[in-house]
Amino acid sequence: MDDIAVDIGGTQLRAALYPPEGLEARVIQSIPTAGEKPALERLFDLIASIWPENGAVRSIALGVAGALNPQSGVVYQVPNIPNWNGLNIIELTAKRFNVPVRLGNDANLAALGEWKYGAGVGHHNLIYLTISTGVGGGIIVNDRLLLGENGLGAEVGHITVLPGGPLCGCGHPGHLESMSSGTGIANHVIRQIQAGRKTILANNNQTPTARLVAEAALQGDELALEAFNIAGEFLGRAIADLLHLFNPTMVILGGGVIKSGELILNPVRRALLDAVISPQYLEGFKLTTARLGDRVGLMGALALARA
Amino acid sequence: MDDIAVDIGGTQLRAALYPPEGLEARVIQSIPTAGEKPALERLFDLIASIWPENGAVRSIALGVAGALNPQSGVVYQVPNIPNWNGLNIIELTAKRFNVPVRLGNDANLAALGEWKYGAGVGHHNLIYLTISTGVGGGIIVNDRLLLGENGLGAEVGHITVLPGGPLCGCGHPGHLESMSSGTGIANHVIRQIQAGRKTILANNNQTPTARLVAEAALQGDELALEAFNIAGEFLGRAIADLLHLFNPTMVILGGGVIKSGELILNPVRRALLDAVISPQYLEGFKLTTARLGDRVGLMGALALARA
Repeated sequence: MDDIAVDIGGTQLRAALYPPEGLEARVIQSIPTAGEKPALERLFDLIASIWPENGAVRSIALGVAGALNPQSGVVYQVPNIPNWNGLNIIELTAKRFNVPVRLGNDANLAALGEWKYGAGVGHHNLIYLTISTGVGGGIIVNDRLLLGENGLGAEVGHITVLPGGPLCGCGHPGHLESMSSGTGIANHVIRQIQAGRKTILANNNQTPTARLVAEAALQGDELALEAFNIAGEFLGRAIADLLHLFNPTMVILGGGVIKSGELILNPVRRALLDAVISPQYLEGFKLTTARLGDRVGLMGALALARA
Repeated sequence: MDDIAVDIGGTQLRAALYPPEGLEARVIQSIPTAGEKPALERLFDLIASIWPENGAVRSIALGVAGALNPQSGVVYQVPNIPNWNGLNIIELTAKRFNVPVRLGNDANLAALGEWKYGAGVGHHNLIYLTISTGVGGGIIVNDRLLLGENGLGAEVGHITVLPGGPLCGCGHPGHLESMSSGTGIANHVIRQIQAGRKTILANNNQTPTARLVAEAALQGDELALEAFNIAGEFLGRAIADLLHLFNPTMVILGGGVIKSGELILNPVRRALLDAVISPQYLEGFKLTTARLGDRVGLMGALALARA
């Protein structure tokens, strides 16, 4: 029987129908997250639109970019779908389609997807980090996704890496997300421009973004290079902490900021090597980049459907 | 059949014989760790000395205060037994006694002991932290001890909590151990005395220890109170990080520094409440103190023997 994988993001809802064992979807449909009809109705319409003619669906897996309890099915907060807060999305979806439904957050499912179908195949203990607007993560411990008691674990972006440091989106100071995300990179440049630092990024009228900072860094702009070095240094040190806690054989880096390549990876590696307390943590260890690209949302949900 | 639990510490080797299911040892023997005969011979003599007359032993579990690989059995470093480095203690012990042998480090086994027989009974996800000369930890994820790929995980003392902070015993700056251990507490006071701060601890000729600092704090000494507040604040913040990563239902604090009670627990609680990113992490969560006391070494090894 087929599985249905759904990727519920801030801007798009995507659903795909996968044959048993296969990794190529029979059909993929997507619609914008926001719209006139309630999001739940739109989600159900989307799933119904890819339902196979023979009706044989084994399970539906929902990957959601937001805070949720994957065990109970309750959604706490989803960007751009405010009226889902408190909803039990597993129950509602199972009731509507009468098949087993599974739920996971996007970063956890990305870890599951990369572990099962991507860069992490064959590893038993691995950590996936996505460095984009924010910092998210998923952790595989002994071939199982680490969820914690209520599915709130693996919030790697919200560990404190610099007490008293810049405020994170969550309101707390000095989190990994505030130091190493694209937002953190841009904010460092903005603060320094306000403090009077010279940079080619101050010469145009655009507010610096991580992408613009990366372009400036490639042109040798000192402040832009500094912003990536700081972000990479804190990320590398946080990875060392994760090695000391989880002793994984692989850390996979994904997300938009990692597309800047050596600009960010160089300081990450340098800080990791410097901060790890014993070379034993690096024996058989590999730091690598994500392999699934834009497919990671659906492939992660597929991995959950088949888990 | 009986199980034998052995606690190999820096100053003492202790071995106990436990009846099936029972928690009261039939016999406990201990000898100093250092001595004329090689430590391995002394360990084997100790185990032989408590061997039951009927010869029926199901397993031997060795808890070692040191770095080791619990899967392979190789010991990396044990304080006061330098010639064990590189030895496969599981193989050697199994060969000598011809029964299954298990191995774990002391902090991990303390977590296992508290989870199975102490403060953490009934919890599925918990973290045990021992705050004494150093900071060690053990982590239970889904009813299993978190070891990582080579048993090097759960090194909670060596996560960086203050970049550029005081040096840890391992040589790296700003680790939790350097901020919140008894050594860290004493070192803060020593540094401040050297900087000219006034304190009753400067009035005698003894080098301040965590115990002396605790006594001074109870007399209202400002520097001593500050030292405990700093240690507690960094510990509380680290516990928040661990909640975000592991979403446990319990954190158990043990070790000599925790015997100072509210002196350290107050700032820990304050920092934890301040640093946790969502009240959901605290729903059903309990911060508590260890229950097994001095028995934790043997009870942890017993839990491993029966695992």
